[in-house]
Amino acid sequence: METNSTAKHNGTAQNSTAHKTSEHYAIISADCHAGLPTEHYRPYLDSKYHPALDDFLAERKAMLAARAEAGMSHDEYEEEWTSQEGYSGGWDAATRDKELDNDGVVGEIMFPDSDSISGTTCPPFGAGIGATGELDGDLAFAGATAHNRWLAELCADSPLRRAGVALVPMVFDVERAVKMVEESHEMGLRGGIAIPTMWVNYEPYHHPKYDIVWERCAALDMPVHVHSGPAPRHEYLDNMGIYVSEVILWAYRPLRFMLWGGVFERHPDLKFVVTESGAYWVPDMLWQMHNQYESMGGSAKISKQLGAAVPRNPVEYFDRNCFLGASTTKRNELARRYAIGIDNIMWGNDFPHPEGTWPHTAEYLRKSFGDIPIDETAQMLGGVAAEVYNFDLEALAPTVERIGPTPTDLGQDELQNQAKWETAKRLGRYWETGVDPAEAFGVF
Amino acid sequence: METNSTAKHNGTAQNSTAHKTSEHYAIISADCHAGLPTEHYRPYLDSKYHPALDDFLAERKAMLAARAEAGMSHDEYEEEWTSQEGYSGGWDAATRDKELDNDGVVGEIMFPDSDSISGTTCPPFGAGIGATGELDGDLAFAGATAHNRWLAELCADSPLRRAGVALVPMVFDVERAVKMVEESHEMGLRGGIAIPTMWVNYEPYHHPKYDIVWERCAALDMPVHVHSGPAPRHEYLDNMGIYVSEVILWAYRPLRFMLWGGVFERHPDLKFVVTESGAYWVPDMLWQMHNQYESMGGSAKISKQLGAAVPRNPVEYFDRNCFLGASTTKRNELARRYAIGIDNIMWGNDFPHPEGTWPHTAEYLRKSFGDIPIDETAQMLGGVAAEVYNFDLEALAPTVERIGPTPTDLGQDELQNQAKWETAKRLGRYWETGVDPAEAFGVF
Repeated sequence: METNSTAKHNGTAQNSTAHKTSEHYAIISADCHAGLPTEHYRPYLDSKYHPALDDFLAERKAMLAARAEAGMSHDEYEEEWTSQEGYSGGWDAATRDKELDNDGVVGEIMFPDSDSISGTTCPPFGAGIGATGELDGDLAFAGATAHNRWLAELCADSPLRRAGVALVPMVFDVERAVKMVEESHEMGLRGGIAIPTMWVNYEPYHHPKYDIVWERCAALDMPVHVHSGPAPRHEYLDNMGIYVSEVILWAYRPLRFMLWGGVFERHPDLKFVVTESGAYWVPDMLWQMHNQYESMGGSAKISKQLGAAVPRNPVEYFDRNCFLGASTTKRNELARRYAIGIDNIMWGNDFPHPEGTWPHTAEYLRKSFGDIPIDETAQMLGGVAAEVYNFDLEALAPTVERIGPTPTDLGQDELQNQAKWETAKRLGRYWETGVDPAEAFGVF
Repeated sequence: METNSTAKHNGTAQNSTAHKTSEHYAIISADCHAGLPTEHYRPYLDSKYHPALDDFLAERKAMLAARAEAGMSHDEYEEEWTSQEGYSGGWDAATRDKELDNDGVVGEIMFPDSDSISGTTCPPFGAGIGATGELDGDLAFAGATAHNRWLAELCADSPLRRAGVALVPMVFDVERAVKMVEESHEMGLRGGIAIPTMWVNYEPYHHPKYDIVWERCAALDMPVHVHSGPAPRHEYLDNMGIYVSEVILWAYRPLRFMLWGGVFERHPDLKFVVTESGAYWVPDMLWQMHNQYESMGGSAKISKQLGAAVPRNPVEYFDRNCFLGASTTKRNELARRYAIGIDNIMWGNDFPHPEGTWPHTAEYLRKSFGDIPIDETAQMLGGVAAEVYNFDLEALAPTVERIGPTPTDLGQDELQNQAKWETAKRLGRYWETGVDPAEAFGVF
């Protein structure tokens, strides 16, 4: 554990199979989206829910109209984006393969809601990324089931490259959720499961009621995901600035509950992934948890049982059990990678969303990874994801040869890049290495 | 504005009167606590609420017993802490002066709840730091009124050194709040007002209903505060690790609402202070807001009216209107001071709370400010607070001479310290200076 943790924050890329198998990078996007236009989910939806689907489509239509009315849509932008040739890759297998090949992406983890602009491709009853404890439980399960069935077909079309994430609205019914986890696994959805990002009025995720779900996911090696999107919008009063500024805080909020709540102590093999929520916030969160756990400091007054549920420093669980589907990693995140943990960061192109790098991934990779050492690049672009989601890199090697970019394509000068990051690597997690942040003008 | 902002993130200490008036630092603690043991508020409470006070004291007693039962207290620790000689300085004027003199603190901003361990000194009906939209509105105003009356007396005993913060539970009644702001100002509570940190089910703080409160506070130069403490505890299921790890997120949450919601555009003279919530999170928040505002990037899809309420970059409002009662500034916060804004950071000893630096402030200052340039030290230790709260540094000069530490006492070597931070200062806010974070291994 300790060595593992140490290894990580020293940035040792422990699994670099990714590039050892090839001169080319095996890029796996840990954040892709696939979903049908909502009405097309009908054949995958149990017929008793068809009338409810009609109602949902009508409400949805009215809601989107109202949003446009309120100036909360961006019609020209939407028009332009959705008229792209590759747009239908959100649900069409052939187009999807073509677009991902062009982007140099050999493998992908698939979340719902292929269209994040108009919201016209959400699974029935809002069971997709936007799912929260506010939904109707039975409908949420029905909509999730429809999406999972369709997604399993899409994955079957190219099982080596596609890892689908099943939707499991567990807050409403844990027994039903366990069954769904098992069915999803049988259907070949090896991407794992996505649970509601916000439990709202249901039990928070460190509650023992969820242990049977964690147990099944750990046993079947199904990673559990929360994905950014949901937020308490009613508080924003239609102010979108507050929404974009606060939304990811709601996505990674469950981490604190699960890390302190002992979930990873009770389930040592559980993999938990926070997707499309960046990674820049990780060092500060870990620094804070480390201090609060190690030093009784300001916490002593609160309680002797501060760490009652966690016999280990929460940072150790983070290193072992938690991963970041960081999507389009920013420069200030890559600069903090030794503190975050290189073996916890997974890049993603967010295909086919406009906030992603598709269809300009090659250009993006040159700009953001040009000065990063090869082993580390290989880990973040695909190595970590290959481990988390069990991709068969041997079998994918030919595709990697064909579409994967090389270090040269990324403009990487290995010797220069190794030298450039020496200091940052030595500093690692300053609160553990004992280096005064001031020495690096604040590396965190 | 722009120049001001630029000046700030370049770390230019604009007001260094603090040390110019003296070789000694004029230290003003932006986070101190003063409050009576709850039952002693009775004479300050309108008599019609006396029966309610009896009920509150009984409930409180039962609640604390239950908390102890659940292992959520720390008796030996509490025993030891509360038996200190200076402990009664939480409400006793003479002891308070003695303790602050020994700590080298010449001025203080006073919040309620002098005892943060046992909770036995909270204002009646929970109207203190813990106040949220969950309280009974009428009782909250009654309890706040009692505390404000007592606090005004304590301030009158030493008006030059004490700036009391009035409690104003505005979410329940804005008209009553405006009246309370005016009365508090008349009573000499120049510290400004503290509003509930969490509005819970009331309107969020960018709602126009609060404009009449902001208008009065701006007109009377009464800074508005939120102080850390409240959090959605019911979600933690008695897990204190989650609480200590998440609590400050709830304290600075209103900032995002007010910055994006146009509060500071509508009230250019309003001063808003987030107290005892650190400062390390500021650069990431500003970087994110800056990008979201300047580049339409991933936000374009959401709305044309993203910044509808804010004709300026939210960062400009932060620089001009927002301040951090950062309390016991950590090394990784001081290392980020050029990105945070040296003219927005106010240090505090959190007297008489155990998580503060009292009674070891001298030692703390040597350790954390030893390598900081003099002008910047003067700003963060007192210069900024002197401006925000209008302290009369001329009149305080003799006291400063008597109790204030000198740069030598802090072990500061000015030439060496200036040189040490040259790079960090040049980098400032990397997203504005255009320096690649990688160049400094991530200075943010």
